[in-house]
Amino acid sequence: MSLLTVGSVAFDAIETPFGKTDKIVGGAGTFIALSSSFYVKDQRLVAVVGEDFPAEMIETLRSKGVNTEGLQIKQGEKTFFWSGKYHNDMNSRDTLITELNVLEHFDPIIPESYQGTEYAMLGNLSPQVQRQVIERMTKRPKLIAMDTMNFWMDIALDELKKTMSMVDVLIINDEEARQLSKEYSLVKAAKVIREMGPKYLIIKKGEHGALLFHGEKVFFAPALPLEDVFDPTGAGDTFAGGFMGYLSATDDTSFDNMKRAIIAGSALASFCVEKFGTQRLMEISSTDLLQRIQRFVALTDFNMEQTL
Amino acid sequence: MSLLTVGSVAFDAIETPFGKTDKIVGGAGTFIALSSSFYVKDQRLVAVVGEDFPAEMIETLRSKGVNTEGLQIKQGEKTFFWSGKYHNDMNSRDTLITELNVLEHFDPIIPESYQGTEYAMLGNLSPQVQRQVIERMTKRPKLIAMDTMNFWMDIALDELKKTMSMVDVLIINDEEARQLSKEYSLVKAAKVIREMGPKYLIIKKGEHGALLFHGEKVFFAPALPLEDVFDPTGAGDTFAGGFMGYLSATDDTSFDNMKRAIIAGSALASFCVEKFGTQRLMEISSTDLLQRIQRFVALTDFNMEQTL
Repeated sequence: MSLLTVGSVAFDAIETPFGKTDKIVGGAGTFIALSSSFYVKDQRLVAVVGEDFPAEMIETLRSKGVNTEGLQIKQGEKTFFWSGKYHNDMNSRDTLITELNVLEHFDPIIPESYQGTEYAMLGNLSPQVQRQVIERMTKRPKLIAMDTMNFWMDIALDELKKTMSMVDVLIINDEEARQLSKEYSLVKAAKVIREMGPKYLIIKKGEHGALLFHGEKVFFAPALPLEDVFDPTGAGDTFAGGFMGYLSATDDTSFDNMKRAIIAGSALASFCVEKFGTQRLMEISSTDLLQRIQRFVALTDFNMEQTL
Repeated sequence: MSLLTVGSVAFDAIETPFGKTDKIVGGAGTFIALSSSFYVKDQRLVAVVGEDFPAEMIETLRSKGVNTEGLQIKQGEKTFFWSGKYHNDMNSRDTLITELNVLEHFDPIIPESYQGTEYAMLGNLSPQVQRQVIERMTKRPKLIAMDTMNFWMDIALDELKKTMSMVDVLIINDEEARQLSKEYSLVKAAKVIREMGPKYLIIKKGEHGALLFHGEKVFFAPALPLEDVFDPTGAGDTFAGGFMGYLSATDDTSFDNMKRAIIAGSALASFCVEKFGTQRLMEISSTDLLQRIQRFVALTDFNMEQTL
């Protein structure tokens, strides 16, 4: 099956306790497209960049099977730019610079050839833009997932709720889940949030793994314990991309397959944080990925059949 | 096989966002003995209380198969008393009162009938007392586990290291692992700590589960996502008791069985936090426990055999 990805394709400048970068390519759309390309072969990107965006990166995406017909290149304009600095514990960060540039008036045009895409991943963008994408699909995708962030909860909560009511899967982190639901307990938060629309809720907990809620079911996926987290930027998008890439490639939206998809996404996210930006995702092979998935299996596998 | 438990048997007064208690029975030794009794039938307790300690509680322990010959009752003295107040997130607490009382000069006498016990769980006590217990066993137990806390790292680090070098399994929380190793990454912390002696290290992460490290192997056990954590007091001791109770009952110290033991301990800890003190552990049946263990299985079970 095919996957539609909408999200920012951007420049990031990152500072962590381990070092800092100049402007490098980042953005939710980039991470989602790269990571999902490990699983799904037919992928379609809707995004916008300025004329300063490197053509080689677009070529790289194409070489990985990403259809870039929906990637608008705005002449005379500049690509979205974000700069941030991580604190020592890597769990929090300060935004130093946000230059919206081409994102300010982003009109997500869906090429005719993208119509009929079965799966859609809406990366973090304004809820209005995310909703436009859904409304512009002549046939509703089989499964729509969206990411968002506390920023939209602060300034556009009603718009966010409207968009959330139209999607199947919401992917947010624990802090965002607490803000959105006004509940501290993630179990209670999950109930409140699913009443807002999404039948499936994934709560990302960073180094503590992720939770998937659906109906009365819950799945707890681990994060791989790592010696160092070098740069967390893009890890959440990489997770979401791997998740949706796996689902669309296997075309199976059962709860059991969603669990597999979460492991598939977690494995890619565990690579993402090992180097700056997209660097590690560019290096790894399918064999590396399969070996990493096996480490996740070993990490949580136990057999209680031998009981007392 | 049999299990020797050493630990405080005490009074607690607890305040949480959900309510507060007067003096109720608590203490690491109590929680360990109660939880391990779900798995192991031959258990021996070494502890000390004052004459104010309720005889009914000692009777309850005995009714659960706990040998209390090594429980000293000091006439004219008072039982150890701790009082604490949990913050709103339940992850941190302030100690309001600590009255050492009988614990101040605790001499852990090992009854002759306890010699030859195959498994030992040293609950959180001064490292000197923990070491005395090991030294007083004429035959070293097959497996010795110990708990400790940041207080001993602050005031008795050399003593603690000496005791740690004599045990097989160290059970501490993430904050304590970071303090002890001076490493933020738990993977790095685990390496440093295992060089201090224990071949097995369990790092408890509260609502985020627990990690078991041994050689190059690592196991990530989930915590059950709960609607409410009513009172976390004793959850760590309950976990340790369940872990060692399961190991001694099955008499299998393989890594695979340690994983099962961690789930066995986690299941009991998930009950412990549902009510104040030992209340929930007193109520539940073996059937409740087996059903809870099944929830842990369902929570993390996935099958990656259907790959792409």
